[in-house]
Amino acid sequence: MNRDELLARLKPEMARIDAAMGKDLAEIVNPTLHEIIHHGIFNGGKRVRPLLMLLATNLCAAELSPDAYRLAMSFEYLHAASLLHDDVIDHAEQRRGKPSANTLWGNSNVILAGDYLHTRAMTLAGTVGNAEILAVIGKATASMVEAEFLQAKTAMEIDRSVENYFSVLAGKTGALISSPCEAGAIFAKASAQERQALHDYGQALGLAFQVVDDLLDYQGDPTKTGKAVGNDFQEGKMTLPLLHALDQAEASQRDQLLALLAASPEERQNEVATAHAIIDANNGFIHAREKAESLVKKACAALAPFPDNEAKKMLLGLGQYVLTRQK
Amino acid sequence: MNRDELLARLKPEMARIDAAMGKDLAEIVNPTLHEIIHHGIFNGGKRVRPLLMLLATNLCAAELSPDAYRLAMSFEYLHAASLLHDDVIDHAEQRRGKPSANTLWGNSNVILAGDYLHTRAMTLAGTVGNAEILAVIGKATASMVEAEFLQAKTAMEIDRSVENYFSVLAGKTGALISSPCEAGAIFAKASAQERQALHDYGQALGLAFQVVDDLLDYQGDPTKTGKAVGNDFQEGKMTLPLLHALDQAEASQRDQLLALLAASPEERQNEVATAHAIIDANNGFIHAREKAESLVKKACAALAPFPDNEAKKMLLGLGQYVLTRQK
Repeated sequence: MNRDELLARLKPEMARIDAAMGKDLAEIVNPTLHEIIHHGIFNGGKRVRPLLMLLATNLCAAELSPDAYRLAMSFEYLHAASLLHDDVIDHAEQRRGKPSANTLWGNSNVILAGDYLHTRAMTLAGTVGNAEILAVIGKATASMVEAEFLQAKTAMEIDRSVENYFSVLAGKTGALISSPCEAGAIFAKASAQERQALHDYGQALGLAFQVVDDLLDYQGDPTKTGKAVGNDFQEGKMTLPLLHALDQAEASQRDQLLALLAASPEERQNEVATAHAIIDANNGFIHAREKAESLVKKACAALAPFPDNEAKKMLLGLGQYVLTRQK
Repeated sequence: MNRDELLARLKPEMARIDAAMGKDLAEIVNPTLHEIIHHGIFNGGKRVRPLLMLLATNLCAAELSPDAYRLAMSFEYLHAASLLHDDVIDHAEQRRGKPSANTLWGNSNVILAGDYLHTRAMTLAGTVGNAEILAVIGKATASMVEAEFLQAKTAMEIDRSVENYFSVLAGKTGALISSPCEAGAIFAKASAQERQALHDYGQALGLAFQVVDDLLDYQGDPTKTGKAVGNDFQEGKMTLPLLHALDQAEASQRDQLLALLAASPEERQNEVATAHAIIDANNGFIHAREKAESLVKKACAALAPFPDNEAKKMLLGLGQYVLTRQK
């Protein structure tokens, strides 16, 4: 299933998820709180996480009840809550080309709005869902926080461990992508084996998604990604293309990269092209691309036990979408 | 039961709660994250919320299993998470006379640590507890956020509504005190009537606690409260003593207060004594004290349906403690 066909099929589901969220959020009393959360949720997001949950439920041969959509919302809420807090933490002025919530309403209001969404997400997970689903979400969020701390450490120490890179990815993205897949299986009362298969699919898909993200940071079109080229390098983030180059480069190039990483962000900003050239010369980008492809292959292979139905076609299609996305 | 006797009886329970939390938090991998959370939790807090849950469970004739202590932790985690975020929001440099977590580790780390505790609290509530308990906690947190937004609005608009004052209190403190009481009843599989009674006890106790807090802000000993006298007035917070004075004062005094409230925090800082005198002359403090006493009376009356046992004596004792506390 190609990208356009996939998006056309998913569009009505996205609209149903949006309708469920709009109805749920109407319960918010304070107009400012409502406005901030509305801004955080209805910002052109693709609803990837709720869609994954619904597709996983479908794949396990369960019908999509109104409760399935209510549970699916919780994954979008969790995602939006973490983006609200991320933007406060990163002092981000923009999100998807528009002013970030913290730019518009200030940090204090946005921290609280994130807390509101976080609470609502977990309440839905454990009430519309059940204790098992709540535990999955709880673990994913804990992993995410641990990964943020690990990432800060790897940046500070110029950590060249590919293992730590994938640990950060697993916590920051893998868990938040695998948890809706796993939750969909639990909600459908699937077998332990099916649940594990969907977890593995989501975990590998999430890692691939993030490896592609790290590639786009160096190679993407800023008018599409909405981010300056080389932003990660400027921030000293140790991502796969850079790690591979550090591992493969001869001493002089490696030392040049390490010197830049030890310099200030301002100094690095002027040397993004230098880093780009060294990474390219040492096949850093090719290596990361191949890794993303092998992860998508792994994700798709995890779905082998399931019968070939529409939901499976779409989940396999999402794998290809991850590899071809440009933003 | 007097204060000292009550504290002596509760001390071993506090130690058990602390031990359960210490064991649970040992699961945190990142040393910095562990340190921040440890700082946020083990800071001399009285464990009021978990104790309320355990006493409520006991009152409903249920034994205190290890799971009861694990569930009780979630209320301390939730409280600590909200204090961590509060201190970031308020740019607080100190907490209980020591440097605040944000002073020591910066806002970003502390926002994430708060998220970790928040997640852990809700996961425990819905897994060690159940969906009903999770819903109670979820509602309490949502009310807290709504109340923060309402409070910001009342301060900005010099809102003289006593109703809004009590709405803010109900959300900010009432819900977080009533929820462990109610959760204790649910955990003990108590009747709907018992559950309601414990909710009402907690709600009235929480309001009384906060009215006394607002009194201590004007009348407390700064060496005990750890806060400057008149801090609320300086921040433009519309608390009960001030609201009563605004309602009762003759036009000239009322206009004097309103002019101060419309001024800058810096100007108000120099006029705390003036505000104090006007509030006192108009019985603002006496009125608030009487209100706190009547709320404690109401809280204690809610426990009438329960048999007279140790747990009830302690819950009644906590009511008196709220009225006599000096910090």
